Amino acid sequence: MPLDIEEFRRRGYEAVDRIADYYADIESHRVLSVVEPGYLKKLLPDNAPEDPESWDVIQADFDNKIMPGMTHWQSPNFFAFFPANSSFEGILGDMYGGMLNTIGFNWLCSPASTELETIVLDWMAKLIGLPGQFLSDGCGGGVIQPTASEAVIVVMIGARDRVLNRCRRVEGKSEEEVAMVANRLIAYGSDQTHSCTHKAALIANVRFRSLPTDDDFRLRGETVWAEVQNDMDEGLIPFFLTATIGTTSSGAVDAIDEIGEAGDVDQLSSLWLVQVNGTDIWLHIDAAYAGASLICPEYQHLLKGVEHADSFDFNMHKWLLTNFDCSLLWVKDRKPLIDALSLTPAYLRTAQGDAGLVTDYKDWQLGLGRRFRSLKAWFVIRSYGAKGLREHINKHIRLASHFRALMAKHPDLLAISTPPTFALTVFNVLAPLPEIEGVDSATLTRQTLERINASGEIFLTLTELRKRPHIRLVPGSPWVEERHVEKAMEVIVRCAKEVVAEMMAKVGATLNQG
Amino acid sequence: MPLDIEEFRRRGYEAVDRIADYYADIESHRVLSVVEPGYLKKLLPDNAPEDPESWDVIQADFDNKIMPGMTHWQSPNFFAFFPANSSFEGILGDMYGGMLNTIGFNWLCSPASTELETIVLDWMAKLIGLPGQFLSDGCGGGVIQPTASEAVIVVMIGARDRVLNRCRRVEGKSEEEVAMVANRLIAYGSDQTHSCTHKAALIANVRFRSLPTDDDFRLRGETVWAEVQNDMDEGLIPFFLTATIGTTSSGAVDAIDEIGEAGDVDQLSSLWLVQVNGTDIWLHIDAAYAGASLICPEYQHLLKGVEHADSFDFNMHKWLLTNFDCSLLWVKDRKPLIDALSLTPAYLRTAQGDAGLVTDYKDWQLGLGRRFRSLKAWFVIRSYGAKGLREHINKHIRLASHFRALMAKHPDLLAISTPPTFALTVFNVLAPLPEIEGVDSATLTRQTLERINASGEIFLTLTELRKRPHIRLVPGSPWVEERHVEKAMEVIVRCAKEVVAEMMAKVGATLNQG
Repeated sequence: MPLDIEEFRRRGYEAVDRIADYYADIESHRVLSVVEPGYLKKLLPDNAPEDPESWDVIQADFDNKIMPGMTHWQSPNFFAFFPANSSFEGILGDMYGGMLNTIGFNWLCSPASTELETIVLDWMAKLIGLPGQFLSDGCGGGVIQPTASEAVIVVMIGARDRVLNRCRRVEGKSEEEVAMVANRLIAYGSDQTHSCTHKAALIANVRFRSLPTDDDFRLRGETVWAEVQNDMDEGLIPFFLTATIGTTSSGAVDAIDEIGEAGDVDQLSSLWLVQVNGTDIWLHIDAAYAGASLICPEYQHLLKGVEHADSFDFNMHKWLLTNFDCSLLWVKDRKPLIDALSLTPAYLRTAQGDAGLVTDYKDWQLGLGRRFRSLKAWFVIRSYGAKGLREHINKHIRLASHFRALMAKHPDLLAISTPPTFALTVFNVLAPLPEIEGVDSATLTRQTLERINASGEIFLTLTELRKRPHIRLVPGSPWVEERHVEKAMEVIVRCAKEVVAEMMAKVGATLNQG
Repeated sequence: MPLDIEEFRRRGYEAVDRIADYYADIESHRVLSVVEPGYLKKLLPDNAPEDPESWDVIQADFDNKIMPGMTHWQSPNFFAFFPANSSFEGILGDMYGGMLNTIGFNWLCSPASTELETIVLDWMAKLIGLPGQFLSDGCGGGVIQPTASEAVIVVMIGARDRVLNRCRRVEGKSEEEVAMVANRLIAYGSDQTHSCTHKAALIANVRFRSLPTDDDFRLRGETVWAEVQNDMDEGLIPFFLTATIGTTSSGAVDAIDEIGEAGDVDQLSSLWLVQVNGTDIWLHIDAAYAGASLICPEYQHLLKGVEHADSFDFNMHKWLLTNFDCSLLWVKDRKPLIDALSLTPAYLRTAQGDAGLVTDYKDWQLGLGRRFRSLKAWFVIRSYGAKGLREHINKHIRLASHFRALMAKHPDLLAISTPPTFALTVFNVLAPLPEIEGVDSATLTRQTLERINASGEIFLTLTELRKRPHIRLVPGSPWVEERHVEKAMEVIVRCAKEVVAEMMAKVGATLNQG
């Protein structure tokens, strides 16, 4: 039965209580669900109900049928992927956003929604130390994208069309000639770049190449320079490159300063100039996870070379306490985005837009409608203050150090795989003896990870580096404390020891049989 | 100061009270804000606060600085664009979603989130009368996209790559030949299709042509047939067409049955077959607004011909009481989407995904992360039941009829422009005398709309049909009643009369001076 206002008030209080109780008791939830694929279909009817149902029934179904199938991203035992912090301020921001339920595609659709977004993005740009060119008072500015994936699609489309429109408008090329240019466009990432850049290239229908990284999984300038030159010699047109601050697999930071210089037009061969008349490579910085750490001055040296970048993105919804989704994208020049993405039919025109007085964010994104996402970001920034946000980042970094200190007590069982960065630790399980088939480090690492997650006590994820499996651990929840990290280490050590013992026993049995 | 659990409980109750009070008193808010561009920058500091601020201060700023800059989409005086209904169930769904804050890009990331989405989409497909091929138990299925814009991008990329991959894999074409095919791909809409299809074509880097509509602004089969044949004769490759149920400007419904037949491969010339080896045109149905009405059986005849469609999209977040965003997309065959959009690096692989046991919705969308949006849709469907949802639709349609009945009392001032459909009415202001310069219908219509919106009493939007301006009115809010529609008519009549009188006076003065 649809809720009326007073019934909502009662049910809303209940919801608030449930949220508060959920967090008070978050550790009671197994971080990973034990349901089997298809579990929910067996529990729910095949058709929507014809008649209204009571909220008591619906809420009970939420408790009994939905909750058992959840993975608890806010659990302090969640160490998988990258974090997706929630906060009470984020939840309150989304509550007020939901109350207003505005669709702020242009300024008129809700002036406050557009203007607060611009202000919050300026605040954050200054807080993380971006150069002034990324602020809204010049040619650049910021916009909230759903995720870092949409951010890279948006800027790649802008970069692609900047080249193609130049071919059309400046060089007077025919559509067929433009198509041949499009076919030769190539975007780059490294072999560590998040798959979203490759996916953006698929969507933009351009070539993509992943470039090799150095021993620390960093993309270096000389690699870019050599590969770009090589591709140009082959007749391709390099137009886009994603450099990463904090790669997914190991938290590596690409050498942005070196790469930026390599991408500058004056470093490139004359062939390039002939092809696209001086347009240089669009350098996008993907700092989806690690960008949050830049609010701490001691990390801002990682921005060295950012003045070469055309765009920069990081997710407040990852490590900065803002409920999903809230990915902050800045560009130095908004014109290529607007040129590529602006269509304003009569039913979307406004006097303010026509007069060029306002920002219409529909022209900075893929879709049209958009939520009032800056509200939750604003609530979080103000309630924590820059100091509070830094404390949150530093706490996770401290916990990661603590985890690694604990790991050092098991030098025969576990080994750090890559230089630790931010709050991410990558490690593997060591083979007790060299070169026994079936008891190699890769097999042990895979099986240990499976056993850890099957335990349901903690949730970790696997990655591959140079085709070898490694386990990633990153404190994810705002609620995580030392004791959770200590428990995680206990679980890891227990599972690794069990796997090693079992594999050795199996090998022993085989040897005995043989 | 970051809120702790008990402080959140208190502030959460307050937020619930504010939401309840907002809706109890929704009419007290001027539907359109009076702020000037840049108003907020003057009210907020240039930098993020260094120290935490108290929630009292933050909440007061929300009241005093944000609220005055809002456009109130839930106001019963909001008759602009298309509606964006909120509901208490929608708000509660987002509250629980925000509590869990899961990022359900694959099944493992929250089994319940993925499975509930599949179930809710099956429910809704059956409720609106889609053919069984769109259900999840065969090759097809449904997915929640942010908006209808992302939906059309996703299916257009799928359709584009279906053709291009066929060229590569089946025909063994070189990348250069594939590029020449890509350059000849053409997507279609009508001159009434929402701009999102054109924008999708820009993003996909394919040609787009808008086809002419008939006198009722409907796209007809014979037009498609003739234009497609003509383009093929010119060497282009038609691959995608959006047909609309309920166009933005006038609510027109394209002749899907005629179009579907025209798009079928057996109707197309042999040239087509040579070019793309039998791949036919992807027919996408955009029912963003009007799709909601299909829950009423008396509207389901509009689906005639839908068996020819490859994809179908409508927004629960428009007219079906589900808070933004929640756009429902169904495809008959999920394979082209997954082929185009699936990339699964090591850090995203799961045992269940590898085994093909589960749906990983990351492969059905542009981005990676995704919210638990099916929760609010499920709450709404269950709390209202199909009956309650139908009542909501029928109420708005009744109110639109009432509005038109009122308009009929002013035959010398106002005229319906297009055959009324759904809850949309399109009208213009009539010139009192024929052919007086400056007192023509177009000028009067534009100026009346400006005056109406400047009054702040109601919010309407303008559109153009055959390059002439028309005013659109659509009841938007779940809270709208007869008296609001009656007041809207009073405002419209008053403003139109004032404008006509002033313009006539001006012309009179000119004539007198002359």
